[in-house]
Amino acid sequence: MDEFGLIQKFFVGHWPQSEDLVAGIGDDGAVLRPSPGCETVAAVDAMVEGVHFLSSIDPGDLGYRLVAVNLSDMAAMGATPRWMTLSLAIPEADPGWLRRFSQGMRECAESDGVALIGGDTTRARVTVVSLQMLGEVPEGQALLRSGARPGDAIYTTGHPGDAAAGLDARMQGDAGSELYDAFARPVSRVAYGRQLRGVAHAAIDTSDGLFADLGKLVESSGVGATLAIDQLPLSDALLARCGREEAVDFALSGGDDYELLFVADGPPPENQDVTVTRIGEIVTGSGIGCTQDGEPFAYEDSGYLHFQ
Amino acid sequence: MDEFGLIQKFFVGHWPQSEDLVAGIGDDGAVLRPSPGCETVAAVDAMVEGVHFLSSIDPGDLGYRLVAVNLSDMAAMGATPRWMTLSLAIPEADPGWLRRFSQGMRECAESDGVALIGGDTTRARVTVVSLQMLGEVPEGQALLRSGARPGDAIYTTGHPGDAAAGLDARMQGDAGSELYDAFARPVSRVAYGRQLRGVAHAAIDTSDGLFADLGKLVESSGVGATLAIDQLPLSDALLARCGREEAVDFALSGGDDYELLFVADGPPPENQDVTVTRIGEIVTGSGIGCTQDGEPFAYEDSGYLHFQ
Repeated sequence: MDEFGLIQKFFVGHWPQSEDLVAGIGDDGAVLRPSPGCETVAAVDAMVEGVHFLSSIDPGDLGYRLVAVNLSDMAAMGATPRWMTLSLAIPEADPGWLRRFSQGMRECAESDGVALIGGDTTRARVTVVSLQMLGEVPEGQALLRSGARPGDAIYTTGHPGDAAAGLDARMQGDAGSELYDAFARPVSRVAYGRQLRGVAHAAIDTSDGLFADLGKLVESSGVGATLAIDQLPLSDALLARCGREEAVDFALSGGDDYELLFVADGPPPENQDVTVTRIGEIVTGSGIGCTQDGEPFAYEDSGYLHFQ
Repeated sequence: MDEFGLIQKFFVGHWPQSEDLVAGIGDDGAVLRPSPGCETVAAVDAMVEGVHFLSSIDPGDLGYRLVAVNLSDMAAMGATPRWMTLSLAIPEADPGWLRRFSQGMRECAESDGVALIGGDTTRARVTVVSLQMLGEVPEGQALLRSGARPGDAIYTTGHPGDAAAGLDARMQGDAGSELYDAFARPVSRVAYGRQLRGVAHAAIDTSDGLFADLGKLVESSGVGATLAIDQLPLSDALLARCGREEAVDFALSGGDDYELLFVADGPPPENQDVTVTRIGEIVTGSGIGCTQDGEPFAYEDSGYLHFQ
């Protein structure tokens, strides 16, 4: 089967159709009709074999996760995800792999109604998958990283650290760890991101670790932060797997959480599906100072950087 | 230098700014303001080391070409290119390579005023570069592949075959071939694509070879075509390099031309910078029948397919 046959079989015709999609897969470009009064939000995330995932990964998990990390960017902007394009570089056209990969993508995308509208499929020695997502947000309501103000409370959704601990468990041969799902199938925070419009002064999603991502938010905003280590919402599963000290390290530096980290000067919106925890405060100055039970606490980030 | 430092140094702040770009590189997503009365066109093209280019390629040529092939998609849709996001997977963060790559991107993008608004940079064993481009077209005026009608004349811009022959010359060690520029630095047909709005019934850009791409256009339109081999606008440089038979093969099956192939029932728009040649006619039926000096001519496509 050639490239066109592959795309036809696994990627066309399985996606939600709407009047706003004038032309989808199968032309030189897709044609979209933007919603009146909205701005367009564009994000891109790539995953590389041997860097972001092992060649043994379940292709369904890979497809799911690729969509999930882009949904997370949309959530962090307060945007409604709408469309995506896929750039797929793979060593061979294995129909079983492609079927499971595309199914994983659909499983993740369907709850938020996102449609695949185009892509490019090529051969490569290692698997590199890259997804570009387009979303929409009412004019002027996008959540940026730059709006934090001294006095704002800092909140996180979910349970930071679970994903990294789950991946660590899997790499140590513990195939049964319930934590692995947090890595493989991150929960969409898109609905909660929309609730944050007009409420959060700034937001970011936690992909590189809570500590590093909070650092980016405060740097963009020209402020500092105090982070209360004792307030981190460590999950029971995480604490059951490792000691408290290691759990804190997973939560702050582990990465791959894809939770929302945001700041606001009032209480966070309520949502019965989302755990939201206050973990600190924005202050004047710069950088992040940690505390434990009110006392200064020295923490050194061990987060992952691609080229260092 | 870490990933953020690299992006900051080579990719931020070198691009055209406009009021329509609410937020660019440096947040979870870029925020764009669509133009009133326009539809958005999205395309993506990837290039893989060892498949689309050799590791010895000039990084400036690679950056230029990556933008050019996406501009070509926009041209084929009649769209005005506006914004792009880059997914960059590279073995190491070589500042010299990155400087030349990003300069090549800018050299190609600046004439059409396209801005880089976001991206993702990761490490990988082989270089995989993927670019997503967003453009705009007045509502209902996008050029699709599906509108060809029997009786339409078939036209191509430029000189098909030059790019493939140039790449072939380079791979045979002929570094001085003037044909190589057609491969490395395809000329933007964006302005001519806009002239085709309301004129062309269907359009496609020639990336896989004129024969294969005409095949896609007629299949999308549910029609057939006759192609006059003797009318192909073979360049003097191409004919000087190889015999006529090989030149025809480069033109029909070589690929990488990134010219516009379109059909219309009137004369093509005039443009002093663009050579436009009539090469055939749309007919009822399906498939492509070739003729030479009015007589049937058997031609078998040798075009490149990624997975066959």
